[in-house]
Amino acid sequence: MIHKLIEKIKKTGAPIVVGLDPMLGYIPEHITAAAYAEHGETLEGAAEAVWQYNKGIVDAVCDLVPAVKPQIAMYEQFGVEGLAAFEKTVRYCHEKGLLVIGDVKRGDIGSTSEAYAVGHLGKVRVGSRLCGGFNEDFVTVNPYLGSDGVKPFMKVCKEEKKGLFVLVKTSNPSSGEFQDQSVNGKPLYELVGEKVAAWGEELMGDTYSYVGAVVGATYPEMGKALRKVMPKAFILVPGYGAQGGKGADLVHFFNADGLGAIVNSSRGIIAAYKQEKYASYGSENYAEASRQAVLDMREDIQTALRR
Amino acid sequence: MIHKLIEKIKKTGAPIVVGLDPMLGYIPEHITAAAYAEHGETLEGAAEAVWQYNKGIVDAVCDLVPAVKPQIAMYEQFGVEGLAAFEKTVRYCHEKGLLVIGDVKRGDIGSTSEAYAVGHLGKVRVGSRLCGGFNEDFVTVNPYLGSDGVKPFMKVCKEEKKGLFVLVKTSNPSSGEFQDQSVNGKPLYELVGEKVAAWGEELMGDTYSYVGAVVGATYPEMGKALRKVMPKAFILVPGYGAQGGKGADLVHFFNADGLGAIVNSSRGIIAAYKQEKYASYGSENYAEASRQAVLDMREDIQTALRR
Repeated sequence: MIHKLIEKIKKTGAPIVVGLDPMLGYIPEHITAAAYAEHGETLEGAAEAVWQYNKGIVDAVCDLVPAVKPQIAMYEQFGVEGLAAFEKTVRYCHEKGLLVIGDVKRGDIGSTSEAYAVGHLGKVRVGSRLCGGFNEDFVTVNPYLGSDGVKPFMKVCKEEKKGLFVLVKTSNPSSGEFQDQSVNGKPLYELVGEKVAAWGEELMGDTYSYVGAVVGATYPEMGKALRKVMPKAFILVPGYGAQGGKGADLVHFFNADGLGAIVNSSRGIIAAYKQEKYASYGSENYAEASRQAVLDMREDIQTALRR
Repeated sequence: MIHKLIEKIKKTGAPIVVGLDPMLGYIPEHITAAAYAEHGETLEGAAEAVWQYNKGIVDAVCDLVPAVKPQIAMYEQFGVEGLAAFEKTVRYCHEKGLLVIGDVKRGDIGSTSEAYAVGHLGKVRVGSRLCGGFNEDFVTVNPYLGSDGVKPFMKVCKEEKKGLFVLVKTSNPSSGEFQDQSVNGKPLYELVGEKVAAWGEELMGDTYSYVGAVVGATYPEMGKALRKVMPKAFILVPGYGAQGGKGADLVHFFNADGLGAIVNSSRGIIAAYKQEKYASYGSENYAEASRQAVLDMREDIQTALRR
């Protein structure tokens, strides 16, 4: 799957992931009104609104980007109905030729981690049959429990040729509380980065590993250091746009081959119509505003990389 | 909710949580056969088997223990259908008077963490209405992202009078890879424990906080140290039984008041009929074997605490 991701990045010229994190507050009123009219102000109604909103965005951007990253929490908040919308979104993105990174940040141990892995990336055995669950192409994984938590995911990735992004240095302000703590003279995130590199060696594609990392755009200097620690890991970079990261900050997340990083933007794209810059589209044309925001982000990153 | 937990522990004399982690391999054949006959060897069939199996165990143990802890990964592996069985299990446990600790180990930031929190512990706003999702009483939370990840859960806990157990030192063999690393002369898990204590101060019940911790039974010496670091945190202790922890190892997880810890056993109880000790029950009477295993575990812990 890492091959496919690289191929698609080259084809689109856009190392960009669209974060499908549909908060209800982002969804234009004509969509929520229609969904509530049909299903009431219920979890079903919310799930329907989320799905229709996503569909519009996916249709508008699917030829421009290699991948989307639905944040499962935004679906899980609506319970089983929300998770059905998550599943439907994954399926639809696949139909439209997009790769899907499930931003699930799961992390447990042994058979429990394996259960998450088969549920999201693989197939689960039921009697004599194998059944698919959510079927993403990549997922994000939390490393706090160590190798016992990550290896079961790697096992499933190997079988299914899918991939992981392990949290190394997250984009949020308090990420340093534990991640920046100094362990034998180097920060914990670097130790985690070294582990990611070691795990990655066990599961290599041609030039990049199936085991990638998450490093926030909001910490460009740390990104620069981690790029060297994990030369063969693809880095998923959140925090661009709404969280403050800019194109120029991203340069050091990439390798000399112009690859090795993929930058996520969520709110900045899916709710672009709410920004002054794109307000002229109006909420009815929210998806076209999202398309323009992707084009602008591609330009910003390409310009930075050309320097 | 922490009050209710303490009250129920006193009433049952059992600081015990039954881990409802239904792997298909644990489920007696008469249950899977009936479920597959009705739904086929499908995710629906697996979810039905899980639900029927859980129901039998809950009926058999609900008067003996204060709480259950369903591990959501074991449901999530069966996709949306599995999560519907999770929801049904939570609801049924509540009907039977049990508290429910959702072992979800979620952890994200800001509005995303809040989405998990409302989905699992609170209510989500849909238009003018508030809708409940999975509705557990407590959840487990991963601390790797720092305060930004935990505080949104605390906010919902405060509103809903619910509780958390933050992963501090997990029971698995590789938990030390990051958790034991020395930071300024003390292990990272202790630093996390100090944070749990500080977060806990902001959300106190009468004697214990709404913010608890997870510390594995497999590390009794670390449990002893952490008990002092977090005197007002209830400690959820996994790793008893199948993972190797014994009653005698648990003593130091408790405070002098005989409270402060609650011990989980999953496989050792729910698949007791597979152990030689309880084999005479037979798979048809798996639930009675589980009941006996709870009684034996209660005796083991009470004996250890009396010493």
